[in-house]
This record gives sequence, structure tokens and C-alpha cells, in this order.
Amino acid sequence: MTLLFDNASQIVTCAGAPRARRGAEMRDLEVLTDAAVVVEGERIAAVGPRDAVRAAHPNATVVDCARRLLMPGLVDSHPHGIFGKPRHEEQELRGAGVGYMEIARRGGGIHSSVRDLRARSEDELFSLALPRLRRLAAHGTTTVEVKSGYGLSLDDELKSLRVIRRLQQALPLRLVPTFLGAHEIPLEYRAAPRTRGEYIALIVEQMLPQVAAEGLATFADIFCEPGVYTTDEARIILGAARRCGLQLKLHADELETAGAAELAAEIGATSADHLAAVSEAGIKALAESGTVATLLPGTMLFLGRPRQAPARALIDAGASVALASDFNPGTSPTVNFPLVLTLAVSQLHLSVSEAVVAATVNGAAAVGLAADTGQIAPGFSADLALYDIDDIRELPYWYGDHRCLATWVRGVPAHGVW
Amino acid sequence: MTLLFDNASQIVTCAGAPRARRGAEMRDLEVLTDAAVVVEGERIAAVGPRDAVRAAHPNATVVDCARRLLMPGLVDSHPHGIFGKPRHEEQELRGAGVGYMEIARRGGGIHSSVRDLRARSEDELFSLALPRLRRLAAHGTTTVEVKSGYGLSLDDELKSLRVIRRLQQALPLRLVPTFLGAHEIPLEYRAAPRTRGEYIALIVEQMLPQVAAEGLATFADIFCEPGVYTTDEARIILGAARRCGLQLKLHADELETAGAAELAAEIGATSADHLAAVSEAGIKALAESGTVATLLPGTMLFLGRPRQAPARALIDAGASVALASDFNPGTSPTVNFPLVLTLAVSQLHLSVSEAVVAATVNGAAAVGLAADTGQIAPGFSADLALYDIDDIRELPYWYGDHRCLATWVRGVPAHGVW
Repeated sequence: MTLLFDNASQIVTCAGAPRARRGAEMRDLEVLTDAAVVVEGERIAAVGPRDAVRAAHPNATVVDCARRLLMPGLVDSHPHGIFGKPRHEEQELRGAGVGYMEIARRGGGIHSSVRDLRARSEDELFSLALPRLRRLAAHGTTTVEVKSGYGLSLDDELKSLRVIRRLQQALPLRLVPTFLGAHEIPLEYRAAPRTRGEYIALIVEQMLPQVAAEGLATFADIFCEPGVYTTDEARIILGAARRCGLQLKLHADELETAGAAELAAEIGATSADHLAAVSEAGIKALAESGTVATLLPGTMLFLGRPRQAPARALIDAGASVALASDFNPGTSPTVNFPLVLTLAVSQLHLSVSEAVVAATVNGAAAVGLAADTGQIAPGFSADLALYDIDDIRELPYWYGDHRCLATWVRGVPAHGVW
Repeated sequence: MTLLFDNASQIVTCAGAPRARRGAEMRDLEVLTDAAVVVEGERIAAVGPRDAVRAAHPNATVVDCARRLLMPGLVDSHPHGIFGKPRHEEQELRGAGVGYMEIARRGGGIHSSVRDLRARSEDELFSLALPRLRRLAAHGTTTVEVKSGYGLSLDDELKSLRVIRRLQQALPLRLVPTFLGAHEIPLEYRAAPRTRGEYIALIVEQMLPQVAAEGLATFADIFCEPGVYTTDEARIILGAARRCGLQLKLHADELETAGAAELAAEIGATSADHLAAVSEAGIKALAESGTVATLLPGTMLFLGRPRQAPARALIDAGASVALASDFNPGTSPTVNFPLVLTLAVSQLHLSVSEAVVAATVNGAAAVGLAADTGQIAPGFSADLALYDIDDIRELPYWYGDHRCLATWVRGVPAHGVW
């Protein structure tokens, strides 16, 4: 089947080298007018001037974009899609000034989601995740990283990852599974007779080998932060993950500076995420590495924290910056990726071009897919989003609105009626 | 026609006295379960336990809420709905650190919208406004204040207000027209031979009398801010507006403290809006007055400004606080009122109950309609919103999402398919 996407107001291709874009390279955003895109099966076959493309493909099925904007589907490289109940009560407590530790003491925080997830069956978790991922897709996201991490036991982590596998079969989205058994130290390993070392051993000796044996995850991730996992522990766990064949990610320097960005760069992690508290040395390390710096400005907004990641300093130092939603039940329950772009411009001081590259090309790089998705260019997967706007600058502008009309993944309609 | 809204997960009534709620009164949010609502024609006839209500109205047409949440339609008491082109280029300039004055020097800011609006016909402006107001409605807003203010000449202000009148006929929404001829001093009155005094005389002697004679506005509003209109000028203009029979609003103390809140309280304005820079004395004056303090946290977010209005201090002092979108092309192009509630909780530290009251009962008070809309209670207009959530705390929680399934205004479907 050949599709010809015609009559768009703009086609934003993001075309360029099939790799993360760094520093000033992030300013390059190819925007075509009077252009058309040809999709053959799952892949983009041609992009070019409208008349020439139409003449070369007279038998293609035309998709009339009706003067709306076509761009690569957004790549959300850091949501947490597998959880049970929402934790809306914590938002209000936080607004009233109740701190993180006090919320945890009252039974909230990650441990609350862990308790909840452990009590649910795989079927229940699948039924909860399905509409949530559809909502992500409804705002224009076509590739979604999905993390485990609310199980924190062998069975519950495997259960979460099996839910992701079922979602991959059930949804037309491109899902990237990540094992996040090191999201927290579970409560039962925090007091005698068990120790945190025993939990780390469980991850290293049982969870990682089994996850790898079943092929349940592409990435291993860890929450490396004072009070959660130390950089030394991250080194042990991620070293074991790499030996199991997994690629690496870190929740790094989110709330307090701990050298996690430097560690990510040193061990060649694919991405270091959050970074609101990254140090100068961390910025330098990331800029000199191939590790993508993934920023999650929605989280800081939702938490009501004044400090955002130093996005400008990262880009100006030459780092590759990606944006993501951090969709999760505690600190960022948004599915609206374009709103993250708004925050990137208004709070992180990115240009619109930088924000769009961060949400497409560099998002793809942050999940190891820079050669496959995030660009409208020949050979790339036909992962497309059609937005009800005239100009790409409107995407972060109409903030909070729902402007996505339709998406396609691998050439197949994934969301919307078009 | 009798409708019976049944089978909601929660019915949030906001029921209480038909007036602005102040201070601790804002915490009261009646949430009913196993309840139903009866609508007779345009008005709510009954609210009560499901079984009793059904038994008393056996012939009513049932609207099955399918275990979703029913609440009063949101009342947006401060959007600017009548404008031409979007001004997305300014967002990026601002993100890059270009200041307000420099943007104005480059032809941006309010004057840019004035130039653009003056060049457009009434028909064009109507065609642009219609889908924008529909987008506001799509997120659950049923009452929309609509301001002129990008005309700044007799003809262009009247043109804008006539567009609002046409919108009132074309849309099922409840629209409240506001004359904002004092949005800025137009450029042609800033240099010899003309003076700002002459523009103020034009407002007082020609615009206001004609607006009143044609019944084109309920409110007169002014941008009272250092660099725009002084409090002395506001006193003159609003005094004339009152003599013409208009109710009063002020853009007050948005960016710099100028005593505008105190003026609003002193002259009995219906609302004082923005208030990010309100003084202690202004807070006290509002708390002791009947003037609603309308807060617009989206604007400060979009502008990337760290200072939000002191919402807690206002409520704790006993003021009535409302929330609104400030939908406008320069500083807050959002139509997503639930996102404003998110910001109210995360940035302004309101509880969910306070935020909901601020967006319903107190929003209605801010447009002089507290006795008519903003509550689900017998005698009130049947202005309702159905959201795809279980619990009212989810409304600000799933931030940026589009959760509104349907709205009704005066008992008639206004948005959605239900």
C-alpha cells in the first residue's frame, strides 16, 4: 500500500543525520511548504515538492492533510505507564506545603503505588494502562518508552513487564520496555532482617537475568538520587544490566546533586534523565559524552518546584537534550506532550526548533531509535502526527489544548479519524 | 422537556448561598454520590438521592452519566476572545530573554494585535472567534466573558462588541460582553498632535455612551498598570462607565504594584484581575470589599515569570478568589480551564475545593451571575459539565489532558456527544 500525504500547511521533517543532535545542531528544523510525503508500507519512501512527488506516484492513495501541519510523531522517552490508582490526594497535600517525607510517612509516594500494583493482576494492570497509553497517543505521541518500577519484587516486576509486552501487541504504538526494578528500595528491605544490599542482589542475580532471558526489556533504569540509590549502587546494578545485554538509563540529579550525570556519561548510558540539580561538572560530562540529557519540565511544574533543569547551559555546552512527559501517578500525570514543549520554551528557554528536535530526533535517540523514527525522511518508519495548526510555532503556543488530529505508526493509523 | 442526569460517579454541586464565597467558605464543596439532577427546561429543578429523584420524575428523559463526574460548567470570567492572528513569535522571543519593551519595539505586543484587528472585517473576526470559543467550551467552560480591547478606536471597539453579539446568537454558550477600550493607549495618541488625554476623552465621551446605548456590554474593564493607565485615569474612565450603567472590572497590579486593587475595592468593582503584584494593603482592601480577586496563573506560567499572585494570602485574609484563563493571543493562549485549576493547586497552593469554587461560584460572581450559574442547585441555570474522571480531585490532576465529555448550557447540549 502506498500513501501520499498531501496538502499540509507545513511538513516539519526534522530530517538530518540519524543520530542525536547536539548543541547548535538542535536549531535545525526543516520546514517544507508545498511538499508531500510518500509512505510505502511501514516506511517513508519519499519527501519532496508536491507536484514532483504526485507525478512520481500517480497510483498512491492520497491522505489530504487539509492545510494542517504534518510532523514526525512525538517520541516520549520517559513515561511510567504501568501503575494502578492515581495519587491525586498527594497533589493537594503538596500544594498545602506537606513535604515529600511527610507524604511518604502518611503512606503516599512511590511505596503507595508499589502496594497498589502488587495487589493487582496482570489483566487489571493491562486494562488500566491501555487507555492511558491511548491518551498519550491522542496528543501526538507515537513512540512510548514504558517502565516497570512499581513492583519491586521479582514477580511484580515481571508482571509489569509482561503487561508491556501485551500492550505492544494490543496497541499500534511503538513501545520501548524498560526495567526499573531499581526505582526505590522496597520497604521490606529497609529494616532487619533484610537489607538494601539483599534487594540489590535480588536485582542483579535474579531480576536482571530473568528479564533478559525472557527478552522483556530493552533498557534498565535506576533512580540514582540521595536517599534512593547511590552512584556506587547504580554502578553495580547498571554494570550487571549491561552484562545482561540491556542498554542503560538513569534518573539522575533530579532533586539533589549527586554526580549521577557524570556517572551516566562515564558508563555510556543512553540517557540521563531529570537533571534539575545537575552540577557544572555534570553538564560538561554530558556535553562530552554520547548520553542524551532528557528533561522533564512538567514534573517540576506539577511539584511546584521553582528549579528547572539548566536546559540552556546543557545545549550551549554542546549536549543532546531530549524532552519527555515523565507521565506517572505521583509527580507528573500528564499525557499532553505538546504542553511539555510549551514548558520547554517558557520555562527552559528553548527555541521552538530546539524543543521540537528534543521531542522527536533526540527523543528517539534517548530510546536507541534515532535511525528508525523521529524524522520524516526516506527510510524512516512512517510515524507521523497531524496537528490542527498552520505553523509549527503554534504547537507550544496553544498551551494545554488538544490539537492532534491523527497519528500513524509504521504507516498505520494509530489515533484519530482521518 | 425534563432531563434526569443519573448514574454519575460524583455530582459536585458547589451548592450554597448565591453569592461569591470568601475565605474559608471556599473550602465547602458539596460532593454527592448516588445522587441525580433534574432539569426542567433551562433550569435545575431538583438535586437529591438517586432513588427518590427517579421516583419523583418517572417520565423524565434519562441522561446516563456512565459513572463519570458531573459538575457545574466552568465560568471563565477573564478571557479575551476577539482577536485576529496568533502571536506565537513572541513566545519564542520571550523564551530567549527578549523583554516586553523590546518585543513592542519590534512591532509586537498589544499594538500588534490592534493593527491586525483593525484590518479585519466583522465577518472575519466572527469566523476566527467562533472556533476559539468552541475550544474553550470543549474543556468544560459554559460561561465565557468576552472582551473587546484590540480595536482602540470607536469603530473598531464597536466592531469587536458586535462580533460578541453575533457569537451570543451563534453559540449555545453563555457569553458576557465586556468593553475594554482602555486596554492600552493607542499608538496614534502617544505623540503630537494627539494626546493620551484625547483618547481618554474619546472613551468617556463617545465610546462608552454608544456602547451603552446599543446595549453592547455588561462590563467596562481597564488595564490599570504603570506604563498603561494610571489609577487616576482608571477612576475617570470607570466613573464614566458606571454612569453609563456598566459594571466595572480592572486589570489590577499585574506586573507592578500600583494600588489598583485598592481602587477596585474602593469603587466597588465587580472584580480586580491578575494581582501578581498586589500589595498587603491591596489584599486587605479586597478582603474587606465585595470585589472578587480573579487570578490568572496561566499567564505567569506562559510568560515564564516566577511571581504568582498571593492566592493563599488573599483567601486567608477573607477575600473571594476566582480563577480564569486570560485566553488571549499574547500572554495566555490556553483554552484548557482545568489546566488553570492544576496551576491553582501546584503554583497558588489552593486546595482542590477552593480551586473548583473559584472556577464556578466565584467565577460566576466575577461576571455578576452568582445567582444564576456556577452551582447545581434548584433554580440555577442548567449549565453542566461531564468529565471523564471518577473523583473531583482528578480534574486538576491529569494536567493538560482533555477530559471533558460534554457540556450543557441552559439545559441544551453545548459541546460533545452525549
